[in-house]
Amino acid sequence: MIYKGIIDRYRKYLPVSDKTPIVTLYEGNTPLLRARNLEKFLKVNSEIYLKFEGMNPTGSFKDRGMTMAISKAVEEGSKAVICASTGNTAASAAAYSARAGLKCSVVIPDGSIALGKLSQAMMHGAKVIALKGNFDEALKIVIEITKNYPITLVNSVNPYRIEGQKTAAFEIIDFLGRAPDYHFIPVGNAGNITAYWKGYKEYANDKSKLKVKSKRLKLSPNLSTFLPFPARRGETCNLPHMMGFQASGSAPIVKGKPIKNPKTIATAIKIGNPASWKKAEEARDESKGVIDMVTDSEIIKAYRLLASLEGVFVEPASAASVAGLIKFNSKINIQKSGCVIVCTVTGHGLKDPDRAIKSAKQPKVLEPNIKKIISAIEL
Amino acid sequence: MIYKGIIDRYRKYLPVSDKTPIVTLYEGNTPLLRARNLEKFLKVNSEIYLKFEGMNPTGSFKDRGMTMAISKAVEEGSKAVICASTGNTAASAAAYSARAGLKCSVVIPDGSIALGKLSQAMMHGAKVIALKGNFDEALKIVIEITKNYPITLVNSVNPYRIEGQKTAAFEIIDFLGRAPDYHFIPVGNAGNITAYWKGYKEYANDKSKLKVKSKRLKLSPNLSTFLPFPARRGETCNLPHMMGFQASGSAPIVKGKPIKNPKTIATAIKIGNPASWKKAEEARDESKGVIDMVTDSEIIKAYRLLASLEGVFVEPASAASVAGLIKFNSKINIQKSGCVIVCTVTGHGLKDPDRAIKSAKQPKVLEPNIKKIISAIEL
Repeated sequence: MIYKGIIDRYRKYLPVSDKTPIVTLYEGNTPLLRARNLEKFLKVNSEIYLKFEGMNPTGSFKDRGMTMAISKAVEEGSKAVICASTGNTAASAAAYSARAGLKCSVVIPDGSIALGKLSQAMMHGAKVIALKGNFDEALKIVIEITKNYPITLVNSVNPYRIEGQKTAAFEIIDFLGRAPDYHFIPVGNAGNITAYWKGYKEYANDKSKLKVKSKRLKLSPNLSTFLPFPARRGETCNLPHMMGFQASGSAPIVKGKPIKNPKTIATAIKIGNPASWKKAEEARDESKGVIDMVTDSEIIKAYRLLASLEGVFVEPASAASVAGLIKFNSKINIQKSGCVIVCTVTGHGLKDPDRAIKSAKQPKVLEPNIKKIISAIEL
Repeated sequence: MIYKGIIDRYRKYLPVSDKTPIVTLYEGNTPLLRARNLEKFLKVNSEIYLKFEGMNPTGSFKDRGMTMAISKAVEEGSKAVICASTGNTAASAAAYSARAGLKCSVVIPDGSIALGKLSQAMMHGAKVIALKGNFDEALKIVIEITKNYPITLVNSVNPYRIEGQKTAAFEIIDFLGRAPDYHFIPVGNAGNITAYWKGYKEYANDKSKLKVKSKRLKLSPNLSTFLPFPARRGETCNLPHMMGFQASGSAPIVKGKPIKNPKTIATAIKIGNPASWKKAEEARDESKGVIDMVTDSEIIKAYRLLASLEGVFVEPASAASVAGLIKFNSKINIQKSGCVIVCTVTGHGLKDPDRAIKSAKQPKVLEPNIKKIISAIEL
């Protein structure tokens, strides 16, 4: 019953030893919530689950990788860390550094990060540099700095980050007793899709973890060439198809080239030249999945649906996974197929309250008068 | 390993049956984090733990009570719920109602709730009424409404709320194998101190849950009349002293009379006439604890300490518990005594990003120039 973070739970799958000092805020162990209202809304005969990563300590999945990166930095004697960030990495790096007593600096694109995330980095005592430039320029410059100064890079190009993040796939298999058939996930810097795929492969190899073999999936004929998965794995399905989604104004992998000025309201995935581009393509190809894109209005629609139907409030970028599921709903024939689908929702809605306020109905201001209130709430 | 919320875990201690439909977002099971940096900072020879309730699904402890209140409302055939709120209850009621398909209305004091909380209630589709009045007036009016209309009250005067909230005490005992010696907690509407005390008493009666008996506590002589606890319980300490803290501009229990215009930056506890006033006093008296107050500047100091020393970002009201610990640090002689202390921090810092931005150093805006960045981060 007692949970003490992902390193404690999944130690045997992670590059740690007895000498690694564990810096943790008890990240991970996040809910995998069945989304029955969404299933009804989409009229599917499949099980949809939401991996609600907003319930990590700093409100995003980044904490899984950060407990690893900061613990290893301390083990290796580092005194300072740095990252470029659209906000969530900065918040996480700042929090774990505070706990570890490390000096933390974060470089963010000026004017492009959500209010909540900025407040976190500042409160946790990080040195916050707002760069006149975008995320890709920020990442380039921090990589350059860490090559020349004694400061540890904690972006997801730090391999310990990916190691920590892969534990989300372990938790899904532990919860379901199997891997899902499809895994939908937002794609920004592309570290997370890389990490999940690594996690699924490693855990599925540990056969004891899989209690249920998936049944053979039925595909509509015209898509069997597109997603020819039963052929790939014979009669069982031990690994999911990785279904990654970028925002259409910020979709370098989909378009096959870096985007110089990425644009999207989904600030967490507003990245024009992803660090894990190649590994994301490998995950897509090995899993016979897709990396596709969704528009900002599709993202906002999914964002509102999650909050109003399921009680799950996420930041806009998180909803790219569910927007992708809605887009592929008819293509992958999940209405009839009895699939198990997981959508990762990467960060809490509280990260970006301004967007929520803009996206919802404004409150009515009233005098303390019962009749007026009853009339307003339309009981 | 598989966790599915407080009702699933603590069913035998809760008023539910097989017929109760469980509405859950997998709330509870929040971290109890050892605060070693805070221990060093305060120079105590005691163990300090933070019960980080901001890691609930909507970012506050309210979710524990709301899973109970909404599940029972559905069981009883209710179609609509209402609450008055300084923000956290509204967010939680709105989220659980969305998941249950209930209609939810919330009445908030106009202009007095933090941005994040407002965004939550709106996104989850609640009818939000901003009342020209304070929380106490809002509570009065929703109680009046529920007496006359078919709508269920989900404020903490609904007894199921307290039942759910008491599970936080269960988790603490499960984690520590014992009850703490002192439990510090913010006091607003006073439902939470009531709930913890109920939880401690019920769980401590179930002797199997207590693996370790606390040793006799040593008190400085001049305080033995103030907190005469060893005498109360003989040689063992199976229950904590409940140490509740109000904000000094909003401290009706401390001052012994309702406060007409409560004032504090800690909006979550800005309440002038607490619904659970009497029960909070009972918890204080039965536990030989205290209900005292801390100033806004003491609250802000604790708020900043938690973020910068421990990596734990809370909303200002949450820090009232730690501000109380700092205030009582010398009085209860924990420097030498080897006590176990738990501080509940009730809500996530992301609930109130504006306050954080105001409380921290602003970022430096720089061109992408390595030398300038290195100089700014003072490596």
